[in-house]
Amino acid sequence: MVNQNIIFGAAYYEEYLPYDRLEKDMQMMVDAGFNTIRIAESTWSVEEPRPGEYDFSHVDRVINAAARYGLNVIVGTPTYAVPYWLVQLDPDVLATTASGKNRYGSRQNMDITNPTYRYYAEGIIRNLVSHTAGYPNVIGFQIDNETKHYGTAGSGMLTLFQRWMKERFGTIKAVNECLGLNYWSNSVTRFEDLPDPSGTINGSYACEFAKFQRKMAEDFLMWQSDIVKKYKRPDQFVTQNLDYEWKSFGAPGQQDGYSWGIQPDICHYKAAKAMTLIGTDIYCFDQDKLTGCEIAFGGDLMRSLRDEPYLVLESQAQAFKDWLPYPGQIRQMAYSHLASGACGVMYWNWHSIHNGLESYWKGLLSHDFESNPTYEEAKLLGGELKKLAPHIAPMKKQNRIAMVVSTEAVNALKWFPTDKDLNYNDVIHWIYDALYELNLECDIIFSQAEDWSKYDLLIFPQLYVIHESMVSRIKEFVNGGGTVLSTFRSFMADENVKIFADRQPHGLTDCFGMTYNQYTRPVNTMVDGAEAQYWMELLNPTTAEVKASYQHKYWGKYAALTRNEFGKGHAWYLGTMLPKEKLKEYLLEVAEDAGIQKPKECWPLVVRSGIGANGQKIHFLFNYSSDEKAILSQWKGKDLLNKKEYEIGQKIYLKDWGVCILEENL
Amino acid sequence: MVNQNIIFGAAYYEEYLPYDRLEKDMQMMVDAGFNTIRIAESTWSVEEPRPGEYDFSHVDRVINAAARYGLNVIVGTPTYAVPYWLVQLDPDVLATTASGKNRYGSRQNMDITNPTYRYYAEGIIRNLVSHTAGYPNVIGFQIDNETKHYGTAGSGMLTLFQRWMKERFGTIKAVNECLGLNYWSNSVTRFEDLPDPSGTINGSYACEFAKFQRKMAEDFLMWQSDIVKKYKRPDQFVTQNLDYEWKSFGAPGQQDGYSWGIQPDICHYKAAKAMTLIGTDIYCFDQDKLTGCEIAFGGDLMRSLRDEPYLVLESQAQAFKDWLPYPGQIRQMAYSHLASGACGVMYWNWHSIHNGLESYWKGLLSHDFESNPTYEEAKLLGGELKKLAPHIAPMKKQNRIAMVVSTEAVNALKWFPTDKDLNYNDVIHWIYDALYELNLECDIIFSQAEDWSKYDLLIFPQLYVIHESMVSRIKEFVNGGGTVLSTFRSFMADENVKIFADRQPHGLTDCFGMTYNQYTRPVNTMVDGAEAQYWMELLNPTTAEVKASYQHKYWGKYAALTRNEFGKGHAWYLGTMLPKEKLKEYLLEVAEDAGIQKPKECWPLVVRSGIGANGQKIHFLFNYSSDEKAILSQWKGKDLLNKKEYEIGQKIYLKDWGVCILEENL
Amino acid sequence: MVNQNIIFGAAYYEEYLPYDRLEKDMQMMVDAGFNTIRIAESTWSVEEPRPGEYDFSHVDRVINAAARYGLNVIVGTPTYAVPYWLVQLDPDVLATTASGKNRYGSRQNMDITNPTYRYYAEGIIRNLVSHTAGYPNVIGFQIDNETKHYGTAGSGMLTLFQRWMKERFGTIKAVNECLGLNYWSNSVTRFEDLPDPSGTINGSYACEFAKFQRKMAEDFLMWQSDIVKKYKRPDQFVTQNLDYEWKSFGAPGQQDGYSWGIQPDICHYKAAKAMTLIGTDIYCFDQDKLTGCEIAFGGDLMRSLRDEPYLVLESQAQAFKDWLPYPGQIRQMAYSHLASGACGVMYWNWHSIHNGLESYWKGLLSHDFESNPTYEEAKLLGGELKKLAPHIAPMKKQNRIAMVVSTEAVNALKWFPTDKDLNYNDVIHWIYDALYELNLECDIIFSQAEDWSKYDLLIFPQLYVIHESMVSRIKEFVNGGGTVLSTFRSFMADENVKIFADRQPHGLTDCFGMTYNQYTRPVNTMVDGAEAQYWMELLNPTTAEVKASYQHKYWGKYAALTRNEFGKGHAWYLGTMLPKEKLKEYLLEVAEDAGIQKPKECWPLVVRSGIGANGQKIHFLFNYSSDEKAILSQWKGKDLLNKKEYEIGQKIYLKDWGVCILEENL
Repeated sequence: MVNQNIIFGAAYYEEYLPYDRLEKDMQMMVDAGFNTIRIAESTWSVEEPRPGEYDFSHVDRVINAAARYGLNVIVGTPTYAVPYWLVQLDPDVLATTASGKNRYGSRQNMDITNPTYRYYAEGIIRNLVSHTAGYPNVIGFQIDNETKHYGTAGSGMLTLFQRWMKERFGTIKAVNECLGLNYWSNSVTRFEDLPDPSGTINGSYACEFAKFQRKMAEDFLMWQSDIVKKYKRPDQFVTQNLDYEWKSFGAPGQQDGYSWGIQPDICHYKAAKAMTLIGTDIYCFDQDKLTGCEIAFGGDLMRSLRDEPYLVLESQAQAFKDWLPYPGQIRQMAYSHLASGACGVMYWNWHSIHNGLESYWKGLLSHDFESNPTYEEAKLLGGELKKLAPHIAPMKKQNRIAMVVSTEAVNALKWFPTDKDLNYNDVIHWIYDALYELNLECDIIFSQAEDWSKYDLLIFPQLYVIHESMVSRIKEFVNGGGTVLSTFRSFMADENVKIFADRQPHGLTDCFGMTYNQYTRPVNTMVDGAEAQYWMELLNPTTAEVKASYQHKYWGKYAALTRNEFGKGHAWYLGTMLPKEKLKEYLLEVAEDAGIQKPKECWPLVVRSGIGANGQKIHFLFNYSSDEKAILSQWKGKDLLNKKEYEIGQKIYLKDWGVCILEENL
Repeated sequence: MVNQNIIFGAAYYEEYLPYDRLEKDMQMMVDAGFNTIRIAESTWSVEEPRPGEYDFSHVDRVINAAARYGLNVIVGTPTYAVPYWLVQLDPDVLATTASGKNRYGSRQNMDITNPTYRYYAEGIIRNLVSHTAGYPNVIGFQIDNETKHYGTAGSGMLTLFQRWMKERFGTIKAVNECLGLNYWSNSVTRFEDLPDPSGTINGSYACEFAKFQRKMAEDFLMWQSDIVKKYKRPDQFVTQNLDYEWKSFGAPGQQDGYSWGIQPDICHYKAAKAMTLIGTDIYCFDQDKLTGCEIAFGGDLMRSLRDEPYLVLESQAQAFKDWLPYPGQIRQMAYSHLASGACGVMYWNWHSIHNGLESYWKGLLSHDFESNPTYEEAKLLGGELKKLAPHIAPMKKQNRIAMVVSTEAVNALKWFPTDKDLNYNDVIHWIYDALYELNLECDIIFSQAEDWSKYDLLIFPQLYVIHESMVSRIKEFVNGGGTVLSTFRSFMADENVKIFADRQPHGLTDCFGMTYNQYTRPVNTMVDGAEAQYWMELLNPTTAEVKASYQHKYWGKYAALTRNEFGKGHAWYLGTMLPKEKLKEYLLEVAEDAGIQKPKECWPLVVRSGIGANGQKIHFLFNYSSDEKAILSQWKGKDLLNKKEYEIGQKIYLKDWGVCILEENL
Repeated sequence: MVNQNIIFGAAYYEEYLPYDRLEKDMQMMVDAGFNTIRIAESTWSVEEPRPGEYDFSHVDRVINAAARYGLNVIVGTPTYAVPYWLVQLDPDVLATTASGKNRYGSRQNMDITNPTYRYYAEGIIRNLVSHTAGYPNVIGFQIDNETKHYGTAGSGMLTLFQRWMKERFGTIKAVNECLGLNYWSNSVTRFEDLPDPSGTINGSYACEFAKFQRKMAEDFLMWQSDIVKKYKRPDQFVTQNLDYEWKSFGAPGQQDGYSWGIQPDICHYKAAKAMTLIGTDIYCFDQDKLTGCEIAFGGDLMRSLRDEPYLVLESQAQAFKDWLPYPGQIRQMAYSHLASGACGVMYWNWHSIHNGLESYWKGLLSHDFESNPTYEEAKLLGGELKKLAPHIAPMKKQNRIAMVVSTEAVNALKWFPTDKDLNYNDVIHWIYDALYELNLECDIIFSQAEDWSKYDLLIFPQLYVIHESMVSRIKEFVNGGGTVLSTFRSFMADENVKIFADRQPHGLTDCFGMTYNQYTRPVNTMVDGAEAQYWMELLNPTTAEVKASYQHKYWGKYAALTRNEFGKGHAWYLGTMLPKEKLKEYLLEVAEDAGIQKPKECWPLVVRSGIGANGQKIHFLFNYSSDEKAILSQWKGKDLLNKKEYEIGQKIYLKDWGVCILEENL
């Protein structure tokens, strides 16, 4: 499905243009080396202005023009932003959430289980896809957009949930017991008495409902995918843009936030089943704060879903006020995506929008549609990509480290947070960013992924929820010679978010050679010269070696970091949060246990490696800083960008925000 | 309508008194030199205890007592605080806003378009005005109180809005295009399908609705004014107390906030049409934070509405806990009002209230009704005012600088803020306060005001929204020899808050001799030794001279401040926010271009000048500090307060928080 | 009712156990020296799974097991957490508050005046109490749990409130006048027109409704008590756990807050009438922040309600993440309770809970049910208590100082706060903590308590609301030789929260020898070398001596602290808030006026004294610090814990977080 080309392009909304400039846009895209545009996913009210009355004239115009200019098209179904007539037909199309009934105006405000919505959604999907599938330059379809459950609750959802609970648990007695509903008089005697979870104080019940909500979203994608597959050509792909938790940084309105870790409101592992080509949207700080870590994180997560290439459907162009890229960064960001195994990069979006919420979320072009430095840099990049494609499209990875993540844990820890200033994804990124900065590349795998055979080191950051089967898998992994590292608060609760009633870490006290049953907030407590933060478990080693203890009048007798030999492997446990630099020291020790050598470079010099299209080893070298840097080549090979040859030990100069793509000689 | 007297007095609510002390109050007012009281505007439930049953006994008692003591009376219509029986008659009298249905209890909670409300409002207005117009000492009427649209939405408003949209745009196609409703599937095919804007994500649509909401409030005032005019005597004025955006400073409850710039929720320019005497309420910090700038701002804005004297209907007495005035400040504040052209000053209010929300928003008298230092200072002031009136009542201004402001811009920038910590009025005050502190007096004119002929310098701070006609007026002004200064983010969007699709600044690139299409947040970026803040446009000069550039590795090639010769005039453009002291340097340069000399004094020594009642020049000299200061007289004349004569160059001593009112010899 | 035993135990919820471990738990309790458990108060849905169908099997099992192990049982009625079937029967069981209709899930979400709720509540109470009263080891009943009014409003409450207002005020004219409803047009002409207070802006009206809400809660407890008394044995007590205002410290979810002063939402003075044994819940910081002050405060308040022993029904075990006790603190806290006159200490709760909101509000046992250091310390303590009981159970107090508090004042000051960062209870604790740290023991009495004869010094911190009768009582007290100290903002408003219209302090200007009618926020204002904070009244002495003045250019002429001789006594008035250390200096001076000597020790060395079971004087000596301390014995006597004898002047060594219980020789 993905060919030797690197997909390069942008989202394009002719429907939003203040005047007709289709030909001019197409020419500017071709000038920038674009080969693909994405259209149609936000404009249902234009495509179906009245119920059942379709108008695909914009779609046709754009696909035809694209064809004339040699551009491919990804057509998106517009189901995430409903027209007002649909709400007028059935007000319950607007979802009810814990905050009450949604209002019309925004996107993603509908109840995706509402039958009226489903009826008209099916109509627009069938008609749009059947209308466009025949165009030769339509290479694929995007189903919906950044799909999640949107907190949908309401009476319809409750009824479906009660049925689902019956299927899941069989008896109401099991529900009461597994979720602990006796607490505060919440137990019930019939499935149809299960109350609206919006008011619940029971985290288990709330997480169960969230799981059901996620399932509705996952099923919805599969439903769309099945419809699309009835009409699309076999060579056309089905994709979707998976996104991440969105972390606010305090800017106003729509310009606030960036991609930050695991998505709580849909499970990527399950959602991916609806796609033939995995897609994603990644947004991050740039300027002085461009580190590459969010790009690498998203890429490692997406690629690891199926060990396949993925498409970056949305990458930032000029974006927010805070994010106008420095010279070099547009190029830097694109190569960062490719270095993680992406098969293409598309900007959101082509031109800045003149009305609406995202007017100051700027595209490649500003509101004046003229050239500008950001566009000019994309042009340079487009030229380079055409030459690079035969070498690197797409790159395969062979990582020996994996970090295990869980949608259930991110949800459960919203109810039982480690600290008000530290959520699940902060810990995920704490670990990931340290690995990234050390140039220890890793896969990021979901807890459902069962094959750990290719890894030497598994890391479990705050894996709060654990299914019983994983306990034995971990033991087998270590026993067989693997190395594991767990942080605090892993293995605490079962799949119903019930805290285990036996010794912690549940089922693994022998594996880790320690246990604990007390924890506290660290106050003026040091570990190995670094300040413990947020949470500290008071570890009592049994067979484990104490690698570090707390420095504190009363807690000094407890271990903070332990290492245990178990079978042929090693199990490390870190009971507290420490500054990233201290964590890195420990990670290098752990990696050494797993037979992984300390990398020679570290951030802001980043090395990302893989196997290129022709089987050669490819090394992307990045300089994530405003200063020129030099790096000693560890390889004999050629810079694919400037064709320069390097010997081992030779200096490679990297400009500020520079990149070198080194292909090792075979 | 305004005679040689300076109106001096307070709001008086006999209805709130815990015991009968009318005569005592009247005597204390006379002792303080009062000549006017304001009554009746908050007490509908007393004036009409049951539907249609009127009781004006308090009103009569107070007017009669006032007459005996030689006091004039302004009678206020009580329509801004509805009795509960009105809500019982029709629950929809309580407005629905974006936050839901209002509750009974507060003022300004009603839907001013509700027919039931209008019916009973008309009743109380007709009866109150016809009942009191015959009293010789009733000199005028206040219609309603601090009228705004209060966020009123709801189904009635929506229906009216749909009709209004039809009148404004003619076709629904025009609405979709002008407001960009295709975005996120918001376009509709019929006017009656336009949705409730409460949930909109389209700033253009939201601002259009806000414009409609403001119109309802402006029409409501005109409706009241028309009713009053049917009953009042020709010599009686109609006034209203225009207020400003209210800026919180973090105190609890009702004691939090002060007057801060342009009112978003009614257009003063339009609202003034309902009044024969413009009135206003101004509140500001005092004690160490009394600068005079909010008083001067409010005064310059009010006076400029029609180049007429205005009445300060509410000035603070003891006010909040934070604001008990220092000795001298009651006098200082009153003279500051007069120095801007006010024809009178009235306190809110006479006595502190013993129950209710504003119990700790204190009047001239404390809860014990006894004399106190604040009251004693008002007594001194009252005596002075009687002697001053023939000289200064009221003062005319002849300013050569005008700052152009816009109700549309303040609304639009709530949707598209420059920064979360910087709103429209912050920028307005940034410019105004700098001018004020430099003693560069200015008018503040609304964008609708068409006559710029008397000005040499026009300043456009963040004039985000601009009507096409103004573009050519600006060009003509500069071409004809005028000087203009624009800040960042002016001229960006049209009257529908659609961002212009051509080069910025829209239509004025030749006038300013520069253009830009990128901007960012300044981080560690200096301009001319001062730190750029919040927003920076990357200016590309064409014909303009670069006055200052950004100091930054990547943005250093762009200009921050430009000056262009265009026709006979000069056009300056400042692309970023800078500390006030740096702004002042630039303002002096710009003023010099306009032929305006640098004033000799600067804040805390403030000079405000005008033409007195007898044609002489009057100069108010203020010392806004706790230290005594000296100033060299630039004029030959007489201090009207102490009759002392001054020669040019002679030292004038100003006590802490002191004032000198110098009348130049003719 | 309370015998020579010290009640020692924990709340126990067999209903929440993840597996059957009743016998094991009982054995561990006995090992810890427990003699009592509390059961059943949260589990209505287990006790009555369907309407009218009772199942007390858990209750029976636990009482029987307890009997076998020699443990007594307190049975709680489960009425504070309703089963879902009750909400299904009548949705109005869920209360409507100012925030809208409550949702199902939480506890304390019901309308306690709802007839359906009352009907089923009566059923469960009657059945549970009659079922269990016959068990010999059931020693008492707890009625409901931490009962308050929960902000219950809604139409039923409004109707009852209108009737109550009729009874309180007689005429609607009196309501309008006493509450000042003319303000902002809020007056009405009929009792049935009194509006829902949820939207009111009238603090008097709001406080009147809050008083009514509290009365509903107080009546509800009395109603429960009356039912229980019909079934219980004469030797069984009726108790309830009074709690305090809950002050957030910024932790997430349910783990946030601690006991902080007077409860606003029920009047303890009145609620106590429903109990034969007063009970309370006290939570506080521990670790480095354990000071003992919240424990002492709660104890002094509870004991002073009727000068009787009280039971601590909930004391913290491991509690929150922030609060894992240091070694020694479990013991320290328990003895601190006993030192205030408690007759027993019970933990909340026995084991940590595996599902639900309070999963991380940990009990004595962690989730693994194994022993841990906290449990081990409780074991040591349990052994000690058995030996101590004959000496100290319970201790009587003879304090000469009393602090006067008021539920009406805490409510009124929510409407008229002294500062956004300073509420009523902050001032209460400012005074109390200073006394506590000086080892000046005091009673804390409600304003309703009429007998002041045993006190030499009365302190009135922010007693904002005062009934007329108290004015004369204060005068009599001082005139007769007593000493009083009042802070700022006392005696300002009458029982209707109407600010007095005469000189402040109302009715007491002669007693205090000063008056004032202005106040402000202190800015850079010192008093006697200490910074004035939040509020400063500008005091004008008449006959009073000026003890301290403000240091400020303009406010320097006003007094900050005055002392007046009045009759045979002294009246002090402090017009501002000062740092605690400065306050302590003044308190010692005031105490000296009352003939109370300066204590020899001060915090962190705390001395709490009383009369033991056998008439001897008992002195609890505490070291509230992490360092060992020595104290010179002021008494000849014996340490009851280690039997060591001390002479006067002999050094007593106190370990970190240590305690010595000295019994004076008779």
